[in-house]
Amino acid sequence: MVIRVNVEFLAKDAVKAVDRGDLIVIIDALRCSSTIVTALANGAKAIIPVRTLDEARRFHAENPNYILAGERGGLKPRGFELGNSPLEYTPEKVSGKIIILTTTSGTSALTYSRGAKWIFVGSFLNAKAVAEKSISIANAEDIGISIVQAGTKGRFSLEDFLCTGAIVNELSKSESEVELSDAAQASLLAFKDAEDDLLANIMKSNHSKKLIELGFTKDIEFSCRKNLFSIVPIYRKGIITKIE
Amino acid sequence: MVIRVNVEFLAKDAVKAVDRGDLIVIIDALRCSSTIVTALANGAKAIIPVRTLDEARRFHAENPNYILAGERGGLKPRGFELGNSPLEYTPEKVSGKIIILTTTSGTSALTYSRGAKWIFVGSFLNAKAVAEKSISIANAEDIGISIVQAGTKGRFSLEDFLCTGAIVNELSKSESEVELSDAAQASLLAFKDAEDDLLANIMKSNHSKKLIELGFTKDIEFSCRKNLFSIVPIYRKGIITKIE
Repeated sequence: MVIRVNVEFLAKDAVKAVDRGDLIVIIDALRCSSTIVTALANGAKAIIPVRTLDEARRFHAENPNYILAGERGGLKPRGFELGNSPLEYTPEKVSGKIIILTTTSGTSALTYSRGAKWIFVGSFLNAKAVAEKSISIANAEDIGISIVQAGTKGRFSLEDFLCTGAIVNELSKSESEVELSDAAQASLLAFKDAEDDLLANIMKSNHSKKLIELGFTKDIEFSCRKNLFSIVPIYRKGIITKIE
Repeated sequence: MVIRVNVEFLAKDAVKAVDRGDLIVIIDALRCSSTIVTALANGAKAIIPVRTLDEARRFHAENPNYILAGERGGLKPRGFELGNSPLEYTPEKVSGKIIILTTTSGTSALTYSRGAKWIFVGSFLNAKAVAEKSISIANAEDIGISIVQAGTKGRFSLEDFLCTGAIVNELSKSESEVELSDAAQASLLAFKDAEDDLLANIMKSNHSKKLIELGFTKDIEFSCRKNLFSIVPIYRKGIITKIE
């Protein structure tokens, strides 16, 4: 059996992946995906992504023991406990907790993926783990894999593309035969060239420049660390948890 | 002055480049762009791209001394003198001639670009020439450059992306300062990794596989030759000619 690997460059194109019946891996490398992976790796019980600030605040008012977290314009909204820096999500802060998270692009990509049976969250931090789990399920269910880049403000983003390449690279190491779409091959070539100096390459992206301006350089450095965690976040019935 | 370099992955997104007021470089590396560049380099007087077979046939009936050329499904339509193989466009065949050309993706990208003041045709064959001419005009007119990939059947294509990277690479060598969009940077990274074995990488694309099946391997080989020609085709008032 050959596993087809597709790539979509924008959050809204997740609907194409849903139509194909593919397993979906959502990438929002800076920083939503990295934040989710880190939070779960550090013991958070679950993450509930919501789209609007209003929704997040209302939901938090009903569940005051949950952590209210997220960003707008890269910054922590007024009254929120945590922002969108993976480094904030320490075991002390998040272990055993449920987190309400609202971010600009990542949350939107998750929403557009609704209807897919399998929705994972991928980042550099868990590239290998998410690739291995995806292959095993794609094999078992005879379905394709779609990597869906959240992008930045509805546009293609370099960091998500390179993160796609990192995951495609891991998929290609599998014993299963994979068939890469043109976009998957393109991401792999770009990742191979960028790999040896990944951070410097990612620092050049439009979104990185904005994060650096806002003082989040350490978040970029952290988000570029490959395979730091071996957990795979799964989004199902509106909740993200660690897949067992 | 900094020249902004943008990239669009699909023919229909040429309209975004038109809205930005950018100079547009259309890429349909396999094979429409390469055919146009080769035809003009070999002495063709002009190429008139038309969208439909009907239009092409009607126009040819009115101008029987023009050459009727193009493809559907990669093949030369019934009654056409030339197909879409650059290798067919020899000086013997095309010198001094006007060619009516209809192809699937390339023609469509040209149509979507209407409204832009400057529309060039780029390929591996003339990457350096088209980059240099684009820089000189972008400088003189204080406008950005948009590379628009024709794609294959409305989808992202690997060969057009790598050809974009080859042109971005040439743009980056310029003395003018260029600011690359995320997509432009991504294409450059992929091209850099693919460059040393360009043909083998391009052979893996979806469209290449189809062309190989149809027996056009030599067209792919030829279309991957970098900077073979120093001409720049310009599309203006419905006609493609060599820019002087």
